[in-house]
Amino acid sequence: MQLLTSCNLTFDIQVPTPFVLMLRPRSGAQQWVAREEYKLEPGVPAFEFTDSYGNLCQRLIAPPGIFGVYTAAEVVTQDWVDQAPGAPFVEVEYLPDGVLSYLLPSRYCESDRFGQMATEITAGQWLGYDQVQAIESWLKANIRFEPYDSDIQLSATEINERGWGVCRDLSHLGIALCRSLSIPARMVVGYLYGLEPMELHAWFEAYVGGQWYTFDATQAELKGGYVAIGYGRDAADVAVFNQFGPPVTVRSQFVSVQRMETS
Amino acid sequence: MQLLTSCNLTFDIQVPTPFVLMLRPRSGAQQWVAREEYKLEPGVPAFEFTDSYGNLCQRLIAPPGIFGVYTAAEVVTQDWVDQAPGAPFVEVEYLPDGVLSYLLPSRYCESDRFGQMATEITAGQWLGYDQVQAIESWLKANIRFEPYDSDIQLSATEINERGWGVCRDLSHLGIALCRSLSIPARMVVGYLYGLEPMELHAWFEAYVGGQWYTFDATQAELKGGYVAIGYGRDAADVAVFNQFGPPVTVRSQFVSVQRMETS
Amino acid sequence: MQLLTSCNLTFDIQVPTPFVLMLRPRSGAQQWVAREEYKLEPGVPAFEFTDSYGNLCQRLIAPPGIFGVYTAAEVVTQDWVDQAPGAPFVEVEYLPDGVLSYLLPSRYCESDRFGQMATEITAGQWLGYDQVQAIESWLKANIRFEPYDSDIQLSATEINERGWGVCRDLSHLGIALCRSLSIPARMVVGYLYGLEPMELHAWFEAYVGGQWYTFDATQAELKGGYVAIGYGRDAADVAVFNQFGPPVTVRSQFVSVQRMETS
Amino acid sequence: MQLLTSCNLTFDIQVPTPFVLMLRPRSGAQQWVAREEYKLEPGVPAFEFTDSYGNLCQRLIAPPGIFGVYTAAEVVTQDWVDQAPGAPFVEVEYLPDGVLSYLLPSRYCESDRFGQMATEITAGQWLGYDQVQAIESWLKANIRFEPYDSDIQLSATEINERGWGVCRDLSHLGIALCRSLSIPARMVVGYLYGLEPMELHAWFEAYVGGQWYTFDATQAELKGGYVAIGYGRDAADVAVFNQFGPPVTVRSQFVSVQRMETS
Repeated sequence: MQLLTSCNLTFDIQVPTPFVLMLRPRSGAQQWVAREEYKLEPGVPAFEFTDSYGNLCQRLIAPPGIFGVYTAAEVVTQDWVDQAPGAPFVEVEYLPDGVLSYLLPSRYCESDRFGQMATEITAGQWLGYDQVQAIESWLKANIRFEPYDSDIQLSATEINERGWGVCRDLSHLGIALCRSLSIPARMVVGYLYGLEPMELHAWFEAYVGGQWYTFDATQAELKGGYVAIGYGRDAADVAVFNQFGPPVTVRSQFVSVQRMETS
Repeated sequence: MQLLTSCNLTFDIQVPTPFVLMLRPRSGAQQWVAREEYKLEPGVPAFEFTDSYGNLCQRLIAPPGIFGVYTAAEVVTQDWVDQAPGAPFVEVEYLPDGVLSYLLPSRYCESDRFGQMATEITAGQWLGYDQVQAIESWLKANIRFEPYDSDIQLSATEINERGWGVCRDLSHLGIALCRSLSIPARMVVGYLYGLEPMELHAWFEAYVGGQWYTFDATQAELKGGYVAIGYGRDAADVAVFNQFGPPVTVRSQFVSVQRMETS
Repeated sequence: MQLLTSCNLTFDIQVPTPFVLMLRPRSGAQQWVAREEYKLEPGVPAFEFTDSYGNLCQRLIAPPGIFGVYTAAEVVTQDWVDQAPGAPFVEVEYLPDGVLSYLLPSRYCESDRFGQMATEITAGQWLGYDQVQAIESWLKANIRFEPYDSDIQLSATEINERGWGVCRDLSHLGIALCRSLSIPARMVVGYLYGLEPMELHAWFEAYVGGQWYTFDATQAELKGGYVAIGYGRDAADVAVFNQFGPPVTVRSQFVSVQRMETS
Repeated sequence: MQLLTSCNLTFDIQVPTPFVLMLRPRSGAQQWVAREEYKLEPGVPAFEFTDSYGNLCQRLIAPPGIFGVYTAAEVVTQDWVDQAPGAPFVEVEYLPDGVLSYLLPSRYCESDRFGQMATEITAGQWLGYDQVQAIESWLKANIRFEPYDSDIQLSATEINERGWGVCRDLSHLGIALCRSLSIPARMVVGYLYGLEPMELHAWFEAYVGGQWYTFDATQAELKGGYVAIGYGRDAADVAVFNQFGPPVTVRSQFVSVQRMETS
C-alpha cells in the first residue's frame, strides 16, 4: 500500500538548543520512500549524518522562540507483514557480523536477566520464529498495553514488574526476552497505518531464518502498513529527537498516516 | 538560494536489466534537501544502499518496455561558492584518513603521470588553494570546453592530448593535476543553476585548508547554485546510472533546475 | 614504555560453544602494537571482524573439552597519561558525528537518571575536563574500590546505592555521570601495568577539548602503562569473551603485564 | 599449512617523508594470523587505520637517514586454493552491495574497453567460474609472465598491447576482462609460498557462486600458500607503501616465506 506519513513537531525554545533528529525514513528491504519532505521553521542550517545503525539523522541548533519541524513522506510498504512460522533459529556462528550486537543487553533491555523466564515462555516451541511468536503472545496476554505515554522511561525488568506499558515498553520486554534466548532483536520506531490513537509507534524485529521479521504485541493481528523511521538496540538509540542542554517544552506533536490512491 | 532540480530519464529496455542509479541528492555541508521525490514507471521494487563514498544508490531490475525514472528535489544551496585564496596545502600526515584515497590515481585520472606538468602550471604559487586555482585557470586557457558529450569516455591523459572536452573531461584533468601535487581531489556530479545548455554537470573539489572547495573550469566565474548528487574518485564512481547486461537505449533525458521563490 | 601483555584463558566446554572474543589490542592514538600473538588450543577455525566500535573481534566454535586462548602483545604506550585541566567542554553541535552515541544511556550507564547528582558533584567547576576530574575525585571518595569481581553485573544506579564496586562498576558510574552532563564518555577494557592484583582492567574516557582523555577512579594517581583492548558504551560492548549457549566454566584466567627493556 | 612470512624494507630518506604502509595481514575467510610483528627503525610514531577496502594501514613520517620497516607474521592458510568449476555467475541484482564497486573500471583496469575481447575468450563457457578460468588460461597462453618488475606501471590495455608483464600486470588484465563480463574482480597483494624468485606477489579474485575465488595466471597450477596483505580495485589501491613528497630510494627489499613445522 502507498502511505502518506507526516510528523510535525513544535517546541518552545528558551536558549539556543542543540538537537539530533531522526525523522527521515529511508528506503529499505520493506519500504520504498517515493517522496519526502523536511521543513524547519525558522529555517536553520542542519547537517545530516548516518549513525552506526544506518539511520539518517539531522543535527541543528534550534533558536529561541517557537521552533517547528515539519516532515512528510510518501512510502510504498507491504499490505501484510511477512510471517514465517517455522523459520529456524540461526546459530550464533552463522549470524552476520552486523547482527551480533543485537544479542547484547542494552539500556532498556537487560536481557542478561531474562534467561529463565524466556525459557519458560517458549517451552515446547520450535527454535526460531515460533519462540518469538510465543513471546509476542505472552506479552499480549500478560502485559497490558496502554497507549498513553508515561513520563519516565522504564526498562524491561521494570515493565515486567509493573505489568503494563506503552508500545515502547512492550517492545523492550519482547527484545530482552528474545536476546536472552540468543535471538537477535532490535527496536523499530516509525508509523503504523490505522493506529488508534494516531501517534509515533514502536515495535520490534527478531532475526530468524536469515532475516528480520516484524513483531508487535500491541496489535491484535499483524497487518501491514508499517513505516520504519529508525532502528536501534532500544529506545535510547531511536529517539526521534534528542535535545541537549536545558529541557525544552514540546508545544505540539502531530502525526498522521493516510492511505493514498494507488496511481 | 532554493532550487527545484529534476532529472527524468526514460529507457528502451529489451530484456530485464539490472540498474544501479545515483540520482538522490543528500543533505551535506553545503546543501540541504528540503523535499525530494523519486518515481519509477512502471513501479518496480528498488533497494537503496549507501556506497563507500556516502552516495545513496538504488538497485532495481528494469522490465522490458519503456522504463522511466523521475526525480525531483528542492534544495537549499549557497548563493556563492566558498573561495579561500591562501588556504594552505595540508601535509599528507595531517589529512583525515578518509581523504587519503583521493590522492591515488583512478580510472580516468592517471595522476601518476602528471607530476612534471602540474609543477610547471603551479610554479610560483602558494601551496594549497592557489595551486588549484592556477590549475583551474590553466584548464580554462588550454582545454576548450565543449558542452556536448562524446560517445567514449576519455581519461585525463587523453584529454590533455586532445585539447578539448566536456565538463567531465575537464574535471578529470583538474583532478589528476591536483593529485599529482599530493592535493586530494574528487569528482562531483550534480546540477548547476543557470547551466547552458541545461544538463547534468560535473565539477571537482580539492581538499585544502582543512576542507573541500569547489572548482569548475567550465564556468567563467564560480557562482553558487551547485547541487551535488554524487561524489567519487572520478566518473567511474559517479555514473548517475550503471546498467548491466546488453546495452539499453536512453530514450530521453530531461534535466531542469529552477530557482524557487523563497518562502 | 614498552610492555609485554598477555592473557591466557582456558575453559571447560561441554557442547560445541560459539564464542566472540575481543583480546587483540590494535594500534591507536595512544598505543602501538609492535608484536602480537594469538593461539587457540585446540586450533579451530576463527573468523575476525571489526565491530561498530572499531574493536577487532574473533568468532569461533569451541569444541568440547579443555579449550585455551593464549594471547600476547608487545605494546608501546605512554609513560604518563595525558591530562588537560581546563580543556573545555565541547558543545554538542561541535562533537564529531561518531562521538554522539557516547552521549546516550546504555545498559549499565543509566545517564538519564543522574543529571541532578552530576550537577551537584561538579558545581563550581569549569565546564569540561575539570568536571570529569571532579567526578573521578568524587568516585574515589565515595565509592569504595574492591578489586575482586562480583558475580552479577550491576548498573550505575545499583552501584551508586551499594557504595562499592570493582573497576568496571566505578567506570560505569563515572560514565553515567559524565553523559548526564552531555560529556561523551566510553568504557575501555584492557591492561594496566603495575595493577595489583594483576587482572584485566577497566577504566573510562571522556571527550573534552576535542579528544578522548583517560580517567580511572581506582588508582591513586594517573600514571601511564594503559593498554586498551576494547572500547564501547559500557561493559556490555567490551566483554573480552561472549559465549552463547549453555554456560561454560572458566577453568583459568591468567593475565600478565611486564615492562620490557627498551631495545 | 602454517607459514612464516616476512617483508623488510629499508629506504634512504632525504627529507621527512610521509608514508602510508600496508604490510600487516589480517585474519580473514582464508587465513588466520597467529602471530605478527612490526618494527620501525628508528622507532617513530605510527598511526593505524582501516581503509575502505578493510586493509589495515599505517601512517608515519620517516625521518632523514636510513629508515627500516621490518614485518613478520605466522599465518595459517590453505594447503590448496578452493576451486569451483561450474560455480555460477551471480546476476548483478543478487550481488552484495559491497561487491558492486568491483564491477567498475579503475586506474589500471579499463574494463569499459574489453567487452568484445572477453566475450571471445570465454565463448562457449558456462557463465561464472568457468569464464574466469578461461580468462586465466588465455592469460597464461597469450601474455608472457616476466617476474622482474618494470619501472613504470602500465594498465590492462597497455599490457594487452605489449604482450608481457609482471604478476601485477597479468592480474590487471584478468580483472579488466572479468569486469567487462559483469563479474566482480579485485586485486590482491601478498605472499605466495614457493614463489620463484621470492618477492611480494599479486593475483586476483573473482566473485562467482556467492564468494571470492583465487586466480593466478603466473602459476602453472593453483596450489595453496597464498597470504593476502591487501585487497583493492587494482594496484593503485594496494601499494604496500605509498610515499609522498620527493621520491625516496628503496635501499633494500627482502621478502621471505617459510613453511613452519606444525606444532
